[in-house]
Amino acid sequence: MKKQIHLNAFEMNCPGHLSHGLWAHPEDQRTRYKDLSYWTQLAQLLEKGKFDALFLADVLGIYDTYEQSADPAVRLGVQIPANDPMLVIPVMAMVTKHLGFAMTASTTYEQPFSFARRMSTLDHLTKGRIAWNVVTSTLQSSAYNFGLTDSVKHDERYEIADEFLEVCYKLWEHSWDDDAVVKDWANQLYVEPSKVNFIDHKGKHFSVPGPHLSEPSLQRTPLIYQAGTSGKGKELAAKHAECVFIGGYRPEVIKRNVEDIHRQAALFGRKSGHIKTFGVLTVITGRTTEEAQRKLADYSSYFSQEGAVLHYSANTGYDLSEYQDEDYLQYTETNHGQSLAALFTKDAAKPKTVGEIKHELGQIGNRGLLAVGTPEQVADQMEQWIDQTGLDGFNLMQVISPGTLQDFVELVVPELQRRGIYRKEYETATLRQQVFGGTSGRLPEDHPAISQLRKGNTHDAITY
Amino acid sequence: MKKQIHLNAFEMNCPGHLSHGLWAHPEDQRTRYKDLSYWTQLAQLLEKGKFDALFLADVLGIYDTYEQSADPAVRLGVQIPANDPMLVIPVMAMVTKHLGFAMTASTTYEQPFSFARRMSTLDHLTKGRIAWNVVTSTLQSSAYNFGLTDSVKHDERYEIADEFLEVCYKLWEHSWDDDAVVKDWANQLYVEPSKVNFIDHKGKHFSVPGPHLSEPSLQRTPLIYQAGTSGKGKELAAKHAECVFIGGYRPEVIKRNVEDIHRQAALFGRKSGHIKTFGVLTVITGRTTEEAQRKLADYSSYFSQEGAVLHYSANTGYDLSEYQDEDYLQYTETNHGQSLAALFTKDAAKPKTVGEIKHELGQIGNRGLLAVGTPEQVADQMEQWIDQTGLDGFNLMQVISPGTLQDFVELVVPELQRRGIYRKEYETATLRQQVFGGTSGRLPEDHPAISQLRKGNTHDAITY
Repeated sequence: MKKQIHLNAFEMNCPGHLSHGLWAHPEDQRTRYKDLSYWTQLAQLLEKGKFDALFLADVLGIYDTYEQSADPAVRLGVQIPANDPMLVIPVMAMVTKHLGFAMTASTTYEQPFSFARRMSTLDHLTKGRIAWNVVTSTLQSSAYNFGLTDSVKHDERYEIADEFLEVCYKLWEHSWDDDAVVKDWANQLYVEPSKVNFIDHKGKHFSVPGPHLSEPSLQRTPLIYQAGTSGKGKELAAKHAECVFIGGYRPEVIKRNVEDIHRQAALFGRKSGHIKTFGVLTVITGRTTEEAQRKLADYSSYFSQEGAVLHYSANTGYDLSEYQDEDYLQYTETNHGQSLAALFTKDAAKPKTVGEIKHELGQIGNRGLLAVGTPEQVADQMEQWIDQTGLDGFNLMQVISPGTLQDFVELVVPELQRRGIYRKEYETATLRQQVFGGTSGRLPEDHPAISQLRKGNTHDAITY
Repeated sequence: MKKQIHLNAFEMNCPGHLSHGLWAHPEDQRTRYKDLSYWTQLAQLLEKGKFDALFLADVLGIYDTYEQSADPAVRLGVQIPANDPMLVIPVMAMVTKHLGFAMTASTTYEQPFSFARRMSTLDHLTKGRIAWNVVTSTLQSSAYNFGLTDSVKHDERYEIADEFLEVCYKLWEHSWDDDAVVKDWANQLYVEPSKVNFIDHKGKHFSVPGPHLSEPSLQRTPLIYQAGTSGKGKELAAKHAECVFIGGYRPEVIKRNVEDIHRQAALFGRKSGHIKTFGVLTVITGRTTEEAQRKLADYSSYFSQEGAVLHYSANTGYDLSEYQDEDYLQYTETNHGQSLAALFTKDAAKPKTVGEIKHELGQIGNRGLLAVGTPEQVADQMEQWIDQTGLDGFNLMQVISPGTLQDFVELVVPELQRRGIYRKEYETATLRQQVFGGTSGRLPEDHPAISQLRKGNTHDAITY
């Protein structure tokens, strides 16, 4: 059997996400983001297209680096207004049977005890279709809103994330035995107390005795997504993530990152087959090359370069309004998110001028791979990237919503299925099984949540 | 027009809630709490019965006071396992048009910035049907799970709650102007930046510059519920709550509490008509007195006195296993929740023995009013209590779910409607309008969120 491509859709609970300015396009429906029906229709479309999951991004702050002001982001609607991602998942679960839901949540601003219960609740309600995209949060404006005087230092953020995950694993995997819930009506025994364990976690950042409040769900631990490109970020992904999200548009750089993740994961004792990698892909398709190109030109006329530039400024910490177009932007590791700086400078053979960077940012699909063409051309391109990079699939970005995905599901999905590289039907299973196969929705034994932590050894720490 | 009765259903996302042991009853369906369909069916039933709202309790800890062990609570399933209440609301909103949803969340363990966004998201998705039951959390086991060495002191909890509410009000009411969202396609102006205000809150417990991430929802501030019986709790309720939840079963004590709330609210400049009070009521009804009594006897045979006693022990901080039945339990103010201690000792003319308290706890409906009888008898009783106490309505507890509410909706609701004291149809409106009428779903001008805080005066504090 040929290698199967896995697909997620990449969206956010706001009118903007990454298609800056496209809310003004007459076909874009993202301004309906406050309506339940917007989300149920999107979920039904994705299930029709046999996607693994809808991946919901999130940001708990505002982009105020560019021109040292929040005004440009507010004016252009760049990820503000933005609502909570978690709360649209239950309705999407109700109208689907197989589609998974990956939600972004930050280990810097959540509390593991209540967060773990929320994820267990979602895993129960969706019958094992939940994934968690682990982020550590970079924005200073977020930090201020949580009472911190500055964003938590980069390395400390990852240390906190590591311990946060450890607490969650203890709650999800090691607090309740599989057979703890007895429901023995005659003896008034709902749960066998000897099978519910306190976790007694006492660490540097968290102290959580437990027990977990939720009984075991189908997956216990949600499928773990992570997008790490910095040194520490890659380490976190290699250690914990099952699905790793890799930005960039140059196949040789993506290939290097894919290999890095697998190599580092092996150092943590994890099998290569237990990690899948996903590129970021924008697809604009039509029945003819001309139709696809016409759509690209149409969408591009709405795309806001300023929106992309201010987003880049906030993500990298470089206020591009302070540079001349001829200045060179040299990549340096900062406290702030460096994925975009890496994407646009490290990816290239040489540093780029600010003018060149702005030009690139002004293009549709600026954050990853872009395929424009007929279904055959797009499928060829996708197969070629998979071959060149070792990626297992893609997170598909929408230009207009849900139009971009409608086109993809209608035109490209049948072509991928015809080639035998994409599922024709779901297997009835949890999200983890949809992505990795197997007979159980649970984490594999080589995952640190299992291999490094044991029930009863409540003072274990994940160390390597 | 006669005074209209308002009704909420009182439930929790767990198999137990307050009907300890009833999960063993063959007709009880609460063990389906992990299924979306359990909640959608319950919501549809309540909307058929023209209820104001489903009120969801919550606890972020475990009851381990009794016998100084968590085992009895685990064994009997007393509010463990328990899932997050927030996540079942979106699906219930999807299958209803008018029913409101009151969710419990603690000001001690949430962060106001992200919490305010979650509530705004729910208010958007439900189109203005969200209420928040403000609690401050009393359990030591909760405190430990949030890294605290002891539960936050009683008075400090209320001080934190007061500031938490202030931050939320600033985000909900004063950050975005009503006309901030412009969606001016031609000029790439999604939001007018001058109409989005930083709140710049700097207080003793929270520092939140804002702005709020969500655009204004129909209600902006969710309808505020509170149940306060201690001195500080009553003060918090009188200052902030629109719907006040009053426990107890002796009409003269309820009456005194109702009057207290209105008197204290007046001191805060609030109109009496902007506060409604709700008693706690269990109704067991049948077509004949005998049928109702048979149900009571049947349910009582499943009710777990031990479950009620351990719940009481955790809520009051008195481990009843340490007392003899002949001991007298004298009410004293403690760091822990005193509502039940107050209920069972202060309510009475004299202190009670532990044996008497245990006996009372072993009865169905032990936390409030109990009506058992035909629809006419129940309606008579409800009318009488309303007359005697000044209450505006009731939070209805279920013995078996959804059977208790099915009986009520089928038998008692038509009787209340026939008497002209209960709505026959919903008006199309927000939850706040369903409860208070009026043409707007927004907070009234005399509420401290409006009267005490003004846009631009970002350093205001609510002081009285």
